[in-house]
Amino acid sequence: MDIENLKFEDGLVTAIAQDYKTGDVLMVAFMDKEALKKTIETKRGYYWSRSRRKLWKKGESSGHEQIVHDILIDCDADAVLLKVEQIGGACHTGYRSCFYRTIDGEVIGEKLFEPDEIYKQ
Amino acid sequence: MDIENLKFEDGLVTAIAQDYKTGDVLMVAFMDKEALKKTIETKRGYYWSRSRRKLWKKGESSGHEQIVHDILIDCDADAVLLKVEQIGGACHTGYRSCFYRTIDGEVIGEKLFEPDEIYKQ
Repeated sequence: MDIENLKFEDGLVTAIAQDYKTGDVLMVAFMDKEALKKTIETKRGYYWSRSRRKLWKKGESSGHEQIVHDILIDCDADAVLLKVEQIGGACHTGYRSCFYRTIDGEVIGEKLFEPDEIYKQ
Repeated sequence: MDIENLKFEDGLVTAIAQDYKTGDVLMVAFMDKEALKKTIETKRGYYWSRSRRKLWKKGESSGHEQIVHDILIDCDADAVLLKVEQIGGACHTGYRSCFYRTIDGEVIGEKLFEPDEIYKQ
């Protein structure tokens, strides 16, 4: 599919990263057209930060990049699912997945690193 | 966690539904506070439709509802991950998952029903 045919709502599609082997959902973020193009071209996860209003490469500070094995799109063509090999942890808090706790606050995720040791000034 | 502490951007959080056994990502949608409350209370998946601007229950027309086993939240508290038992297909097109094709257009998903036979006028 030509990515021009995807439906970018307010310029963005929802992007879910899932471990290509375990099926664990690692994170969800947004992509603009450029982020999706760079992800396809480089086979590394790129996203659009809504808060910082800029393109970012997953792992650009931490080295915890995502090697993208497959990209699926949903029925409405307004969301993509990346099947990735996650180097290190997906979450900036040090957990393997951003979904490391239940809605009741119980921590169920695996912590892989201490953020202070990875994200240095 | 009190759901008042979640970050509803423009009134919404991103909501991913994942098969609680296989790990397959079934769909992604949005929830407003009411949809999340009803999901927690009833253990069935409710969402907010951005196009129709209304609350909807997954399966309200088709019977293909979602029995919610767990709800996880992400690091930023602006997304939820539902671990669900999906009755029938998650996708209105008849596929088990809304992510039934690759970005190159190859269909990889399993079709479970014909929409015309399920969604009757």
